[in-house]
Amino acid sequence: MLLKREHLEAKQSELYDAIIVGGGAGGLSAAVYLARYNLKVLVIEKGRGRSFWMQELWNFVPEVISGKELLQRGQQMALGYGADVLNGYVEDVEDTGDEFRVRVKYRLKNSEYPVFRSRYLIAASGIMDVLPQLASMQNVYEYAGYNLHVCLICDGYEMLDKRAALIAGSEGLINAAFVLNWFTPYISVLTMGAFSVSASMREKLAEHGYPLIEKPIVRFLGQNHIMDGIEFADGSVLPVDTGLIAMGSIRHNAYLHRFNLDKDGEDLQTDEYCRTSHPRIFALGDLKKGLNQVSIAVADGTLAGTMIWRDIRRQAAPRKWLTNLRQTEMA
Amino acid sequence: MLLKREHLEAKQSELYDAIIVGGGAGGLSAAVYLARYNLKVLVIEKGRGRSFWMQELWNFVPEVISGKELLQRGQQMALGYGADVLNGYVEDVEDTGDEFRVRVKYRLKNSEYPVFRSRYLIAASGIMDVLPQLASMQNVYEYAGYNLHVCLICDGYEMLDKRAALIAGSEGLINAAFVLNWFTPYISVLTMGAFSVSASMREKLAEHGYPLIEKPIVRFLGQNHIMDGIEFADGSVLPVDTGLIAMGSIRHNAYLHRFNLDKDGEDLQTDEYCRTSHPRIFALGDLKKGLNQVSIAVADGTLAGTMIWRDIRRQAAPRKWLTNLRQTEMA
Repeated sequence: MLLKREHLEAKQSELYDAIIVGGGAGGLSAAVYLARYNLKVLVIEKGRGRSFWMQELWNFVPEVISGKELLQRGQQMALGYGADVLNGYVEDVEDTGDEFRVRVKYRLKNSEYPVFRSRYLIAASGIMDVLPQLASMQNVYEYAGYNLHVCLICDGYEMLDKRAALIAGSEGLINAAFVLNWFTPYISVLTMGAFSVSASMREKLAEHGYPLIEKPIVRFLGQNHIMDGIEFADGSVLPVDTGLIAMGSIRHNAYLHRFNLDKDGEDLQTDEYCRTSHPRIFALGDLKKGLNQVSIAVADGTLAGTMIWRDIRRQAAPRKWLTNLRQTEMA
Repeated sequence: MLLKREHLEAKQSELYDAIIVGGGAGGLSAAVYLARYNLKVLVIEKGRGRSFWMQELWNFVPEVISGKELLQRGQQMALGYGADVLNGYVEDVEDTGDEFRVRVKYRLKNSEYPVFRSRYLIAASGIMDVLPQLASMQNVYEYAGYNLHVCLICDGYEMLDKRAALIAGSEGLINAAFVLNWFTPYISVLTMGAFSVSASMREKLAEHGYPLIEKPIVRFLGQNHIMDGIEFADGSVLPVDTGLIAMGSIRHNAYLHRFNLDKDGEDLQTDEYCRTSHPRIFALGDLKKGLNQVSIAVADGTLAGTMIWRDIRRQAAPRKWLTNLRQTEMA
């Protein structure tokens, strides 16, 4: 059920089989699997994650759907099988050796700090895209997720042969231009003057005919969520049809700070069933190494849920058909 | 587009980037990704695969959906991005070294045998569950996929504390009882007399209180797709609320007979991106090692599609912005 203030006290004395940090596509998939394995599961969702912002999810079979719709339907599905869901923010997790203690900030105002208990923990809290920091962030949100994209794999197709601004957050991220050019060669690279660009990169961009613009951005121009130009600090305007923000991402993983989990760069390393280097912590989707795609997160939920079930099942006593047991067994 | 007879000749002279054998959840996901990577793709679908028979897909976020609906919507999605789809049966595949030649049987009557060309091949043709062979197979189809299940992971939840018949196809498959008992202890094990059961397995079943019934099955009883009993050759009837068929499965992979692909048992071995031991053949979903779940197949389509795109992209000349090239480049 969807937990409210009045449920918090009772639920803190329960031992969940698994607590899932993050109610995105991966966390909800894990919740559906765990609940259908007849296990007790709590999903803690802070809201406004990456999928929340997706206007159209173009590539997740069987149909185009908005992120909000996906989250809403998926949550109903998990609730329908008996999963608990709490809107809150996980601040800290401690491991007592056989249980996790998960401290949650509940409500932004008049906050309470319940602590929930579980045998397993699933880190499904995802990432947040870094966006250009303009004087008016409202101006950024107006276009981000519409024709100002953050995911080349997802949205390259939407940029076919269009004039595209690539807004890069570092020299390394400028290399996205040499993948984006599969879809369009009409690429202008924008650094906002936030970092210096090496001579070799300048040379490479020039060889491809991709202008490098290092002036600060003042605002995105357009209307009805369709960006059609970018205005710079010197008053000049770059007309564009689309854009790609490649400024990296921030991982929502601060609550894992006590665990020295193995990583590959910033991504958590897992085995093929999403188990991290801690045997009772699993990681799904964008937090772990691999493609940041909804389909991957949903499959990760399947894998992690199934492995946790297997662990728990193998530790449990088998259920016998008591009235059918032989006399010797009954004695 | 959906290919018809009149398209076959022209399409045989095209070189597809990838031909996908199987238009189930995995194949359609691969088609969507490849088409959105602006690649030319052909899906060849024989019809009536495993997902076609699923009445309700309970565990694929974001919503409960029937297999038929999933396939229909997914195919529309792939067609919408420009994928070609052909209803046909892949009989044989040859590798010329840089191209595959894929021979298809088109139409059951007045068959034609077009041969299509592609750079990559995706084996997404899945498996078929072995069902009890009764005098009237119609009687089996009446209940299979309703309350006579074939997938414990998918449907164990539907069997909670119910009287369940486990129809096993071999002694090894009787072990499904010791997983099914997570959901219900009221398990009767049915062999149909098709194989002999060892003393140690008899002992183990007796210890759990699970009756072993070795008589041939004559028919399933019930109505409106709800089985409520099983009638045996001696006229006796076992009342049940649900059933699980564990008789193994047949892999649809005959067309791969020329390729000595690495296997793990009967499953194809792949790397983490679904590439088999042949560098231009990928395998998805139920044909490869791992869980046979729709979510996994859909993610596999993402992975294989993305890797094929990466291979092809890296071999392609980069698209430059010609009018922006420096004079020296233009010379």
